[in-house]
Amino acid sequence: MSKKAIVLLSGGLDSTTVAAIAKSQGYDVFALSFRYGQRHEAELQSAARVAEVMNISTHVIADIDLRLFGGSALTADIDVPKNIDQGSDEVPVTYVPARNTIFLSFALAWAEVLQCHDIFIGVNAVDYSGYPDCRPEFIKSFETMANFATVIGTESSNRILIQTPLMEMTKADIIKRGIELGVDYSLTTSCYDPVGDSVPCGGCDACILRARGFSEAGLDDPQLNK
Amino acid sequence: MSKKAIVLLSGGLDSTTVAAIAKSQGYDVFALSFRYGQRHEAELQSAARVAEVMNISTHVIADIDLRLFGGSALTADIDVPKNIDQGSDEVPVTYVPARNTIFLSFALAWAEVLQCHDIFIGVNAVDYSGYPDCRPEFIKSFETMANFATVIGTESSNRILIQTPLMEMTKADIIKRGIELGVDYSLTTSCYDPVGDSVPCGGCDACILRARGFSEAGLDDPQLNK
Repeated sequence: MSKKAIVLLSGGLDSTTVAAIAKSQGYDVFALSFRYGQRHEAELQSAARVAEVMNISTHVIADIDLRLFGGSALTADIDVPKNIDQGSDEVPVTYVPARNTIFLSFALAWAEVLQCHDIFIGVNAVDYSGYPDCRPEFIKSFETMANFATVIGTESSNRILIQTPLMEMTKADIIKRGIELGVDYSLTTSCYDPVGDSVPCGGCDACILRARGFSEAGLDDPQLNK
Repeated sequence: MSKKAIVLLSGGLDSTTVAAIAKSQGYDVFALSFRYGQRHEAELQSAARVAEVMNISTHVIADIDLRLFGGSALTADIDVPKNIDQGSDEVPVTYVPARNTIFLSFALAWAEVLQCHDIFIGVNAVDYSGYPDCRPEFIKSFETMANFATVIGTESSNRILIQTPLMEMTKADIIKRGIELGVDYSLTTSCYDPVGDSVPCGGCDACILRARGFSEAGLDDPQLNK
């Protein structure tokens, strides 16, 4: 029987690559997505398509309404900024407070029930948007906490691992690795604010990072040529 | 302007006492409860009554369906055990996987939005049910993680604190402290499995711990004499 892994799958480029990496390492992948009050359903549709095409047998979408708290351009009535200075030190308004903490907490609950020790998340410290909950220090401290929080984590024989295979990769390297593994990036959605719920806006941080990644990898983005 | 605190308020004896303690320390209390797929609504009704009687101006109930993952007598079709051995080392089936991690993660999101540094939770390491996510090690590691996860946590001037005023108190001491602070325990619900959604069963762990607490405090439980 293969080892189980939970993969946080947003339907974007990064998390889809992570799912492909986990599968390539022989894991039986359990994919977890969230309907958290985001601006559009496009990424959830992408997540479902990715899970289907990659033969991921179990894909769960959890409903959690982070609009309850607001505080982000993704979960409140705040416009998504376009074409902003990528060199700024400010945390952008697309940051959703504690989102990765909440996502990983749900994954942890599922891990405890499945008796699964590996949780994969597509965070990245290189080409990222300056969110505090994408840093290695956050992941490391979450992992420590997770092992105190759970019954499986406190069993000495096995620890819960938060696996971040993309942490030190550039966006171009992520794309190249995904292509090697056969990922079809036309299935994925990165845009924060798609036009008509499906066409990438081209100007948000996520679109800009994605375009730069494909450009640096010397590849065309198949999502733009559908 | 008084300092803000988020209090996780289940409507039970412990969290209600915590709310009273936070108020007595001058905090402006923001109460957070969860409809997480628990067996009954009695505790949420209690939480709402407590919030009203204590003049807590903001009480939010978040909907998160932990039945998605199951794995507990409180969130799956597993009977709540009655009159079990309190000295057992086993984690009881009423343990809900990663529940406190998920609850604290939502509180953290709200704290980030409110610019609030204090989160109160009524966990207890003395008269408790053996859940891993009630131990001081868990709370300490969550606090460390919370400060990496958030923008307010990474500001050097201020840290997020997970406050656990009940951690080292016996149930009897908790009740005596609450009475001093004017808590009306007839408003609270502790039972995991109330009869007809309101009458305590008397046999579950929560009922037994509560009864023993009132007995050791030399007091009658006002909930039983309503």
